[in-house]
Amino acid sequence: MAGEISCDSIWTGADLVTMRDGRYNLIEDGAIAVRDGKIAWLGPRAEAATITAREHTDFGGGIITPGLVDCHTHLVFGGDRSHEFEQRLNGVSYAEIAAQGGGIISTVRATREASLEQLVSSARRRIEHLLAEGVTTLEIKSGYGLDESSELRMMRAIRQIAQEIPADVLSTCLAAHSTPPEFKQHPDGWIEVICDRLLPQVAAEGLADAVDAFCEHLAFSPEQVARVFTRAQALGLPVKLHAEQLSSLGGSALAARFNALSADHLEYATESDVQAMAEHGTVAVLLPGAFYLLRETQLPPVELFRRYQVPMALASDANPGTSPALSLRLMLNMACTLFRFTPEEALAGVTLNGARALGLEQSHGTLETGKVANFVHWPLARPAELIYWLGGQLPCQVIYRGEKQ
Amino acid sequence: MAGEISCDSIWTGADLVTMRDGRYNLIEDGAIAVRDGKIAWLGPRAEAATITAREHTDFGGGIITPGLVDCHTHLVFGGDRSHEFEQRLNGVSYAEIAAQGGGIISTVRATREASLEQLVSSARRRIEHLLAEGVTTLEIKSGYGLDESSELRMMRAIRQIAQEIPADVLSTCLAAHSTPPEFKQHPDGWIEVICDRLLPQVAAEGLADAVDAFCEHLAFSPEQVARVFTRAQALGLPVKLHAEQLSSLGGSALAARFNALSADHLEYATESDVQAMAEHGTVAVLLPGAFYLLRETQLPPVELFRRYQVPMALASDANPGTSPALSLRLMLNMACTLFRFTPEEALAGVTLNGARALGLEQSHGTLETGKVANFVHWPLARPAELIYWLGGQLPCQVIYRGEKQ
Ligand SMILES: [Zn+2]
Ligand SMILES: [Zn+2]
Repeated sequence: MAGEISCDSIWTGADLVTMRDGRYNLIEDGAIAVRDGKIAWLGPRAEAATITAREHTDFGGGIITPGLVDCHTHLVFGGDRSHEFEQRLNGVSYAEIAAQGGGIISTVRATREASLEQLVSSARRRIEHLLAEGVTTLEIKSGYGLDESSELRMMRAIRQIAQEIPADVLSTCLAAHSTPPEFKQHPDGWIEVICDRLLPQVAAEGLADAVDAFCEHLAFSPEQVARVFTRAQALGLPVKLHAEQLSSLGGSALAARFNALSADHLEYATESDVQAMAEHGTVAVLLPGAFYLLRETQLPPVELFRRYQVPMALASDANPGTSPALSLRLMLNMACTLFRFTPEEALAGVTLNGARALGLEQSHGTLETGKVANFVHWPLARPAELIYWLGGQLPCQVIYRGEKQ
Repeated sequence: MAGEISCDSIWTGADLVTMRDGRYNLIEDGAIAVRDGKIAWLGPRAEAATITAREHTDFGGGIITPGLVDCHTHLVFGGDRSHEFEQRLNGVSYAEIAAQGGGIISTVRATREASLEQLVSSARRRIEHLLAEGVTTLEIKSGYGLDESSELRMMRAIRQIAQEIPADVLSTCLAAHSTPPEFKQHPDGWIEVICDRLLPQVAAEGLADAVDAFCEHLAFSPEQVARVFTRAQALGLPVKLHAEQLSSLGGSALAARFNALSADHLEYATESDVQAMAEHGTVAVLLPGAFYLLRETQLPPVELFRRYQVPMALASDANPGTSPALSLRLMLNMACTLFRFTPEEALAGVTLNGARALGLEQSHGTLETGKVANFVHWPLARPAELIYWLGGQLPCQVIYRGEKQ
């Protein structure tokens, strides 16, 4: 039994999909008691009789999951690339589009031109879609500014969004996303700016919770990434990496050696990469939206992640180029359909393992006593329905920090 | 100029994506005048000065498209198959699932057990998702009853839904969807029941607008389909066919010879099938949701449809087994991403060509004078954005028969 507990609110009438240890770990006909925005108690309703609460919500059926975690997004940007998307499908080549100033550089231009307020408001319109589907924690990266002031403005926009929306928002500095046009002839110059000027300022102002980079032939080498990571660690910032998306450079093993929170994409990760990640507790963040939109055929090594018990997270990778995704739930379906995740693995990917990828596993990602009271009620019979229904926006009631949204 | 017209309502302040002739045929800063639920006039706003109307709505930006048409759905059914979906991903074989009574037969059982009211209300919950995204015309098939009374109940449910929702709903008799368990040993017996008893009753009661069948090794042969089609035509009912989804049986050419409205799926259609469809004006209905969920690799012959000028429609194929799709907009993205449709072709697939597949091209599917006033306002800069954004539910204002929904 619960013992005598006095709480702010109690929530009953639904099965609890706790996601403890990354499994459904279902509590049928459960109850959640909330105090000070945290889960004070949870268990079978029959054991909750001794709990008193000022407010009581009975859902009369359905399931409750942890609030969803989208641990990898690029939701702050200027403009969009729908015109380019259409041009490509009309047969215009990448080269022609690049010659017209298209590609990532068009987003960089629009982002540099956007004010902080414009960045915040356009991102918020996109984020609304995610929140409506039960996301209560999300990460957002910089990386379209690619000059000092624009990168700082992006991170300030992320911090402002965090103040304004009912979700826990983490900020990541991804200045090493692409070489700025001004540094085309000497990319190392931009790495120097990042290490010597930008990161110290980011750390001093507390503008980022982590530092990311893009390790790929068309972006930065493992050596350049290592310089950024070394500086980040010296400043006390954890790291993560876009790695092995298009080729195998050993970026994920490099990230693991820096005790990275996560390595992300990973279609081309090898067994030794996976081993290194397992050793260092680095989470594998898989991004099925980008895989789908790029019509990638190289599947991430899901079997290896399972064998080495590397936690697998899933995220939207929401970005204007390769994944203009507005739905995390759709990513769950894509992970099951394209990567053969089980529904339980998929849901763990946007709850416990998403929280792990952000270093938040002590406070987020499962329904457990002591964790933040971020959870979602769905009028569904079983958790697999979250994934089975393709598209649409399933109705849900989001509870953020113990408050109905 | 418009001349002096007196109307019920006028709608301004948006670009009109007319989809006339299956192209965007954009009218910038347009106006639509509505009288008696039909488009009385449309054109550039500057030419609309002489129109008087009782109501005036100015959208202040954005685009207006025709109401979307979902021309192939199985939205009426009992139960769902999310449990089976999860079992398959957990490695349970099709054979084991079938041995447990899973597969289409589980939907047949649940549909037979459901009352008319249950069929209507569960379908309406699913249809809400489509309506929220701008669908104003949809087709729904029977085919999970597989006995006379259950098939009739499905079609009555479809007719009742048509009365209740703000959309034009067409009913299709798909009794030849699968062999009922009772006829396992003599499938021809079910074909006889369809031809001799069911179709005459359907025609007498006006329960269907068309007759469909599933031509495939695991369903019915071209000869069996021909018997059903012959009877349907004698009763004055147009036909359509599920054809060439899993193998090439010449079903689409057969359908064309019966002047079918459409042949649907078509991954395995050959050049001679496509030629036959072109000759007889049969629309190609492509279903990217089922293609995606079945991880099909055989692409439908889009290039051939283009070359022979066979109109291509797109639909959700919403059904509990191979495409539990709740979003037609997602199908547009999948058609572009997986089938390399252009955004313009995709939008034509759910407007003019969707209407053609239902025999409604004179009254539906484009913004043109004399057509029904079913249209949708989207706060977007260009039509490609409808397709570019992956998932989420874009906000829109639906106008059905001239009335705001
Ligand atoms: Zn990314
Ligand atoms: Zn179908």
